[in-house]
Amino acid sequence: MTEKVVIIGGGAAGPKTAAKLRRENPDIKIDLYTQEDIISYSACGLPYFIENIIQNPETLIMRTPEDFQKQNIDIHLKQRCLSVNTDDKTVLIQDLISGNKYEASYDILVIATGAVPVLPHIANINLKNIFTLRTIQDGINIKEKMLSSKRAVLLGGGYISIEVMEALVQNNITVTLIEKNSQILKMFDEDFSQMVTDYIIGKNPGQVTILTNEEVIAFKGNENNEVSEVITSSGKIIETDFVILGTGVRPNTDFLQGSDIKLGINNSIKVDKTLKTSKQGVYAVGDCTDNFNLVTNRYTWVPMGSTANKEGRCAAINISGGSCFFDGILNSTITKYFNLTISIIGISYREALELGFKPEFAIVTKRDKAGYMPNTGTMTLKLIADRNTQTILGIQGIGEGDVNQRINTVIPAILSKTKLESFMNLDLPYSPPYSPAIDPVLNAAQIVYHKING
Amino acid sequence: MTEKVVIIGGGAAGPKTAAKLRRENPDIKIDLYTQEDIISYSACGLPYFIENIIQNPETLIMRTPEDFQKQNIDIHLKQRCLSVNTDDKTVLIQDLISGNKYEASYDILVIATGAVPVLPHIANINLKNIFTLRTIQDGINIKEKMLSSKRAVLLGGGYISIEVMEALVQNNITVTLIEKNSQILKMFDEDFSQMVTDYIIGKNPGQVTILTNEEVIAFKGNENNEVSEVITSSGKIIETDFVILGTGVRPNTDFLQGSDIKLGINNSIKVDKTLKTSKQGVYAVGDCTDNFNLVTNRYTWVPMGSTANKEGRCAAINISGGSCFFDGILNSTITKYFNLTISIIGISYREALELGFKPEFAIVTKRDKAGYMPNTGTMTLKLIADRNTQTILGIQGIGEGDVNQRINTVIPAILSKTKLESFMNLDLPYSPPYSPAIDPVLNAAQIVYHKING
Repeated sequence: MTEKVVIIGGGAAGPKTAAKLRRENPDIKIDLYTQEDIISYSACGLPYFIENIIQNPETLIMRTPEDFQKQNIDIHLKQRCLSVNTDDKTVLIQDLISGNKYEASYDILVIATGAVPVLPHIANINLKNIFTLRTIQDGINIKEKMLSSKRAVLLGGGYISIEVMEALVQNNITVTLIEKNSQILKMFDEDFSQMVTDYIIGKNPGQVTILTNEEVIAFKGNENNEVSEVITSSGKIIETDFVILGTGVRPNTDFLQGSDIKLGINNSIKVDKTLKTSKQGVYAVGDCTDNFNLVTNRYTWVPMGSTANKEGRCAAINISGGSCFFDGILNSTITKYFNLTISIIGISYREALELGFKPEFAIVTKRDKAGYMPNTGTMTLKLIADRNTQTILGIQGIGEGDVNQRINTVIPAILSKTKLESFMNLDLPYSPPYSPAIDPVLNAAQIVYHKING
Repeated sequence: MTEKVVIIGGGAAGPKTAAKLRRENPDIKIDLYTQEDIISYSACGLPYFIENIIQNPETLIMRTPEDFQKQNIDIHLKQRCLSVNTDDKTVLIQDLISGNKYEASYDILVIATGAVPVLPHIANINLKNIFTLRTIQDGINIKEKMLSSKRAVLLGGGYISIEVMEALVQNNITVTLIEKNSQILKMFDEDFSQMVTDYIIGKNPGQVTILTNEEVIAFKGNENNEVSEVITSSGKIIETDFVILGTGVRPNTDFLQGSDIKLGINNSIKVDKTLKTSKQGVYAVGDCTDNFNLVTNRYTWVPMGSTANKEGRCAAINISGGSCFFDGILNSTITKYFNLTISIIGISYREALELGFKPEFAIVTKRDKAGYMPNTGTMTLKLIADRNTQTILGIQGIGEGDVNQRINTVIPAILSKTKLESFMNLDLPYSPPYSPAIDPVLNAAQIVYHKING
């Protein structure tokens, strides 16, 4: 009988585990330790707080320590886990206020320490007004600086930079995005990445610059040690008021170096489908764990808030004696830039080629409703299928039309490896306010089927 | 080698077949006969024309006879097919202008005669201003009458009545809907039907009345033979300016009585998965054919514009020597009443019980985006699963939130009989503007899984 569960980490996965554990077990002791001074918040909402769509950062907090206390879950703020001793079943914790260290014992340990930003090796990266965006305090700091600024530089062309760019542009900041690869959104095929770039530039001409194949080699500061210039590999000097580093994250697992808990890809924690680590009694959930990709059948590391929530729930069920299998992920992501929805599921055509599939693709640009209805939006979908198995490997979707409906339609078909021949005549509900008589995603499937089978 | 294809019917399926046939075969002769004076139009758009969201009824026409002529497809308007002789491979056609009859020969015949309204046996049903809504001319007639009216009665509580009701209410008509069953939208479970009723009444209090368990027994006319009163089984007398009969449709197959082409359920034409009828060389597509229901594994008859288009395309491929299987349908339907989306896929809980399944269900009411985002909408989903197979049998969704995204996510899972255990952790893409971290449809799946498995 489990008596004492210790959870390390207070982002999304840890609190989710705690709450679900309590629902399943009224009596066990649950202690959650986090190095932060806040728990259970949505980091994914931070760009919208910066944009000022959300005014109060507390809105992003799902549950407070007091909420948890009411459920008899003890939250320990500003307490960092320094190491895990799986023989003694203890964790070593440091109180970040007093500096004191102490041990806490567990019957079951759940590691949910999330991810931390990767800081690139760039000269003078410690200047003031060079930010990362991971915590609510990061969001508050960026917003405050933004409100008194005119220019910003974003490093890295991933989703967070796109979301933050919208926030900054809406607040009249002139933005330069610098990406070291040849395209932004590198998980997309080049054509779709280019469509996003074109939309961003076209949306606010003159206000946004996107530089690709460009690396930042140094920052320069003013007399107050505030960043004032960004210097690139091609010799560009970009004046700026602040910088946001969207240069990726890594699993927050340094404290497990030297422990006997097995790490996997990118030093994420290796877990099985029940969220168990290599050591008995130790679970791991959320951004600090590895993920099994159900399209490529390979282990990968894709930190996502939705996965964190599902894993937390699943681990809690398993700890409580139930049975929950988290089979894996499909690399499903979505974001928006103003009215443009941007989404990719599964793998791109390029990645399919690299992985040795024999891929074929179809690209369709269609309206999202019957053509005669008002307020239709268009979308461009790229459906990628495997010639050998005639199943779908991935979809990319971009448009002001209802992309997400189509993307979501493909996801269960990827999971269940539905044949194109069945999928292309799928009975999707039709009504003029919702779709054309043959849905765009079925058009795409028909075309790719035809390209494969003649 | 097919040389001459004759298509009977000009709604959605016939023109779709013709167009696809031409793309596949530059040289064959294609003749399409229709009793109407217009072809290739979207009957599903007619309520929005009446509402005046669409001003010009010609907008609903996808392709004109001239468009087809450019593709060397001969369209013969106002020509009714009286009978089919499959021995001689001829059809008997009557010219509705001159009254003359003549035979046309075919190598391949495609029957696409659609459906016609069912006229209930009610006294004085031939009075003026009692309409059905099937053709563009019907739509024009109703709109014209509506614009000079104050009151209307709708018979039947199906989708068309709901859509027409929106149109009428928007145009300041006081509407009474009369439904002989105990609920409107009889394919839904009672609870969901009631939610729609409540929304309709609450949306425009005093302007709409919904009477259930009520039959119309007679119409009464004024001195101009215009309908003026509707008399019901419970003795109600409802004054009205016009009436719209939404009392269902039946396959337009009377002309096949006595032919050797096999008819199925409701006198729809029996077709196999390649859209072949029982007679060699004769195909049938669209609303006049039967349908195989992939959830119940039974034949059914569900006339839908989307199915018509897919069947037309599929038949054309098969006629052209290709291979296309139309496996069946899932009873997928969607409509809206003002901002309320209303959708059902598969079967209801009640129908599942009737069919001998061991169903379980979950009902969730959730917001469609992260709770802290502006402009979230709510939705209520009812997910029905089979205890024995742990697969999904159907979903009902109602709400001002983004219901259709969730509904569409379930459809491929119903088709592929994905286990609940896999579906409930499906990797749907998460971003605050698009969904909560755990999507409502996954919440529903988790709950129904839990109800089945403890």
